[in-house]
Order: sequence, then C-alpha cells, then structure tokens
Amino acid sequence: MDIQAYRFKEGTVLGELPTNEEIDDPKDTLRQLVDEFSDAQERLYADARQSLLLIFQGMDGAGKDSTIKKVTSGVNPQGFQVTGFKKPTHLELDHNYLWRCWRAVPERGRIGVFNRSHYEEVLVVRVHPGILDNRSLPDRVFGDDFWSRRFADINNFEAHLHHNGTRIIKFFLNVSKEEQKRRMIRRLDTPEKWWKFNPGDVEERAFWDDYMRCYQWALEATSTQHAPWYVIPADNKPAMRVIVARIIVDLLQGMDINFPAPDPDQVSRFDWARATLENETD
Amino acid sequence: MDIQAYRFKEGTVLGELPTNEEIDDPKDTLRQLVDEFSDAQERLYADARQSLLLIFQGMDGAGKDSTIKKVTSGVNPQGFQVTGFKKPTHLELDHNYLWRCWRAVPERGRIGVFNRSHYEEVLVVRVHPGILDNRSLPDRVFGDDFWSRRFADINNFEAHLHHNGTRIIKFFLNVSKEEQKRRMIRRLDTPEKWWKFNPGDVEERAFWDDYMRCYQWALEATSTQHAPWYVIPADNKPAMRVIVARIIVDLLQGMDINFPAPDPDQVSRFDWARATLENETD
Repeated sequence: MDIQAYRFKEGTVLGELPTNEEIDDPKDTLRQLVDEFSDAQERLYADARQSLLLIFQGMDGAGKDSTIKKVTSGVNPQGFQVTGFKKPTHLELDHNYLWRCWRAVPERGRIGVFNRSHYEEVLVVRVHPGILDNRSLPDRVFGDDFWSRRFADINNFEAHLHHNGTRIIKFFLNVSKEEQKRRMIRRLDTPEKWWKFNPGDVEERAFWDDYMRCYQWALEATSTQHAPWYVIPADNKPAMRVIVARIIVDLLQGMDINFPAPDPDQVSRFDWARATLENETD
Repeated sequence: MDIQAYRFKEGTVLGELPTNEEIDDPKDTLRQLVDEFSDAQERLYADARQSLLLIFQGMDGAGKDSTIKKVTSGVNPQGFQVTGFKKPTHLELDHNYLWRCWRAVPERGRIGVFNRSHYEEVLVVRVHPGILDNRSLPDRVFGDDFWSRRFADINNFEAHLHHNGTRIIKFFLNVSKEEQKRRMIRRLDTPEKWWKFNPGDVEERAFWDDYMRCYQWALEATSTQHAPWYVIPADNKPAMRVIVARIIVDLLQGMDINFPAPDPDQVSRFDWARATLENETD
C-alpha cells in the first residue's frame, strides 16, 4: 500500500478523490497492524520524549467513532486518550477556541486522539457563521482576514506542538453523500440505534457542498510538512481502518524509538540490588 | 467462581489470605470476559447516567499495569480513561490531596481507572510520615486523629461519588513478598526491562510489614457497602486477571443498563427524515 497516495497535496481537489477503496483481507491485515501499533506504542511510552496526536474529521456517519475504536483496540489505555470535541460548553466559550484543545494535547510518551477538533472552527462555524454571534468576540476581530487568521492560528499551534516533540497526523474520512444517506437509512431501520439518530443530521445534508468547500479550503491552508492531512476513502469501512492503521504504524515505526537506556546511577546499584534480594534472610 | 470470596469483610486479616490461585483455562475465560466487558461498556456509555471507577492498589510488582492493560484491552477507549497517580507534582501539592483525584473522576457514561490513588495518602505516606514535612500543612491538622480523619475524608469522597451516579470497585492486588522478589530478580535478568527497574524498590522491601499493616488499617476503615475492597491473589497473573475481570463484569451486568429510549421529539421527526432522504433529487 502506498500511503502517500492518500496524502493531501498542493492542487488536490477533494471532489475528485475516490470515496471507495478495496483492500484484500482487511480483517487479518488490521489485526496485524494493531499488534504493530501496540508494540510501537510501548516504545513511545517507555522513551517518554515524544508524543503523537491523531486528528479525525469527517461528515456525520463517515465512521470516526468506529475507526478510532477498531484501530486503537489493543493499544494500552494507560498511554492513550481520546477526546471528543462536541458543541463547546459555557466554560469553553469563555475562552478562545484553542483553549480546550490545549487542555487535551497528549503528554510525552502518550498518544492523543481528537474526535473532531479545532478544525470545527473553520468547518461548521464557517458553514454556519451565525454561530459566531454567540461567541462574545470583540468587533475588532472580524474582517476580511478572519478565516485566514484562523488558519494561521491553527498552523502555529500545530507547529509549536511539532517543534516540541509531538507528531501530528490529520485524517479526513471522505464519505460520499450517497453512502451517508444509506447509513442514515440503515440507522432508521435499526431500532437499537435510534437513540443516537438525530434528524437534524438530515437537514445538515442540505449544506453538503458548503462543507466540502470549507474542507477544501481548510485542507489547502493547513496541510503542512509537520502536520499533514490524509484523505481516506470512507465508503468501505474495513478498508478505511486498514489505511488509517497503516499510516499511523508507518509514522511510529519511522520514528525509530528504542527502549531507553537505564539511568547509569541506577545501574551502578543493580549488583547491590541483586545481592540484597538473594541474601534476604526472612 | 464465587467473587464474594475475594471481598474484604469485617474481621478479614490480610496476612491470612491466599496470594496464589489457580483457574482453569484463564486465557479463554479472559477473552470471553473482555467481550462481555466491552458489551456492558457500550450500554453504560449510551445510557450516560452512571459511571464506573476502578481503583488498583498493590505493592511494586503486584501487576497493576499489566492487569489494567489485559483486562481493559477491547474496551472502547472513547469511554475510558486511566490515570496513574505518581509522586505529586508541585501544582498538586499546592492543593489538598483529594484535588488531583477529583480532576480524574470519570464523567457520566465513562469508566475511570486509578492506577494507585488517594489511598497512597494512607499507605506510603503513613509508612514514611516524613513525607508530610514537605506538604506545607498547618500545625492544627496534626493530631491523634490524623489518620482516622483521612479515612473519613476518603469515605465521604467515595460516598459522594456513589450517591451521585458513580459505582466504585477497589482492588488490592495481593502479591507475596517471595513472588515480588522473584519478579525483581527476573527484571534484573532482562536487560530490556532495566530502564524501568529502580533499585530503590528493593530498599522499600524492608518496610514490607509496615505496608501490610497500613493496608490492613486502610481496608478495615474504607471497605464500605458502596465502595468495597476486593483482595485478589496476585502471584498467578493470568488467574488474577480473570478474577478482576469477573468482578467488573458482574457489577456492570448487575446494573442492568439498557440502551436509552430515543427522545420522543426526535422520533416524531423520523418519518420526515426518512422521506427526505428517500426523496432527495441530487
């Protein structure tokens, strides 16, 4: 698999990218990748100098929740944290929009997952700019460069993380409008899933083209060397999971992290420790 | 398996409890339990009215990390958070000792795991009371009832959680002093594990009996109906994992949580949603 094929590059037009992909034997391949992910995580955790931030974006029903679950099951939960960014709370709205993201970035040695992220600020907020009316922002922040300043904020935030030890991968799960419809109808056909069905999501489909335009702008503006976007065909979930896992595992393995050398001060006492243990009398 | 056999009861003497246990076919049993755990977690998460707090305590090498990893692999990381309580940071020491625990309690619908916990405040701190010299506490807090007030604090904290929707299970992983020695020597024999070997842990063995005394006092004082302690034989790790998983799954299944009924306001719009999807023209 050539993962570079999924990388968003200059000149990429989202609407021209495939939303479907076939992969041989995705279940076994994913199982193998999850094992590799788990091994690589142990090293990241032991080394405790770098961290990894995975950002997942996509339309409703693109498969963010299930992809995160399937790709990360097997990873040690002690070095791992998923944060879901929903409608901001009152406390969050009392701060600038990157504040809640800052609070959720992974510590050294850890893996953090953002299920949605600061990108909502240039996606849903841009599609529905009326949201800004409730943000209590001063007049001076509005102007022609409002969105480009947001992109600069985001790039600076991500650059800071990168330059201080955090690797970042951003996934746009690219589902087709037709497949989203099939998934919504399937939910309506499944009473056990009704509790998580929101008819408002159907209304939101009317803004599909606006969302795609905002995604295009966002990916163009924020696909950087240190924080690349990958556009993953999402109509076939098993294939999508394999591609996502492969990209993560490739990055982690490429970091070439070794288990840390023991502290020499500690090692100098290993002989004492062994003798003490072996000569205990009680 | 009679999980009540592992529950700490009035009159239990820790030193008389077994540290070893055999269980048939532990690997397959654990796999089955992990699946049940995952199913039960989905319901807890969907219902989002209750939460679960699992507290793990035990001597060095008792197997806290690996038990948490093996029992919880398979659980959806989106509803799950492990917090390791290490030596308090400066920020944490600027607050009272329950502050950092409050910040880590699970939200509704979530499962939280404490790897070590507020109990260290009546264990390591009681074995080495000199630790209190650096806590900047006012003189008035010291007195004959210092430790019993800590137990009351802890019971009140846990009672509050229970009475507001959080179920609590506390595990003491009961390893023998002899098995701890074997595990320490095995670490010294394994160069890849040297980075996490601390010779200071060998010195700490000199305080073994003090620790057991403090554990006995702590378990006597804080084994309550709403937050019971279970003492798990820890010399045989595969058996320990099965027992821990069984206790968690029994509690979750006993809570008898169903997927929530959909919001009637939403359901009233389901027909509209279906018609809209099916009649879309583009």
